[in-house]
Amino acid sequence: MTEKLTAAEHAEKIEPLLAQGWTLVDGREAIYKKFVFTNFVEAFGFMTRAAIHAEKLNHHPEWSNVYKTVEVTLTTHDADGLSALDAQLGAIMDKLAGG
Amino acid sequence: MTEKLTAAEHAEKIEPLLAQGWTLVDGREAIYKKFVFTNFVEAFGFMTRAAIHAEKLNHHPEWSNVYKTVEVTLTTHDADGLSALDAQLGAIMDKLAGG
Repeated sequence: MTEKLTAAEHAEKIEPLLAQGWTLVDGREAIYKKFVFTNFVEAFGFMTRAAIHAEKLNHHPEWSNVYKTVEVTLTTHDADGLSALDAQLGAIMDKLAGG
Repeated sequence: MTEKLTAAEHAEKIEPLLAQGWTLVDGREAIYKKFVFTNFVEAFGFMTRAAIHAEKLNHHPEWSNVYKTVEVTLTTHDADGLSALDAQLGAIMDKLAGG
């Protein structure tokens, strides 16, 4: 069972992501970001690299792709909210996307 | 510009996909299928193989992934409807998924 972030941990771990373009999702304890690349190969290349990290973390995104755009939602079903894994995967994705 | 399928072509190319679990999307000229795999690696492996075919065809899906599930919508924006490329990519995806 992954622990949900406390308010203090939320401030420490999630707020830096909100400063990088992630947003809190209405009606869910989740964060969302839209990544836009130059073409499909770049977008899917990002997904492939992120997928390997996600599998290593055993923490997987909800995500969609339309051509050069990748929309990502992160939440922790086990914790019924945001956990440290969401913060970790979000930061990895930002790094992979060069953001 | 990719040509939209005629009614006869639709019957020939799209109806076989409908028999394989694809459905017509309400309110759009598009087809949809939900693929379910055994785990994330299988689901994303399918996406990776399909992505390479999509890029070769220069015809890309709208798709989303949540853990072991991949939901795919195919349409041809250029044609404002379904084209032979949708039928081709759909059939490739079925083959890749072992369906």
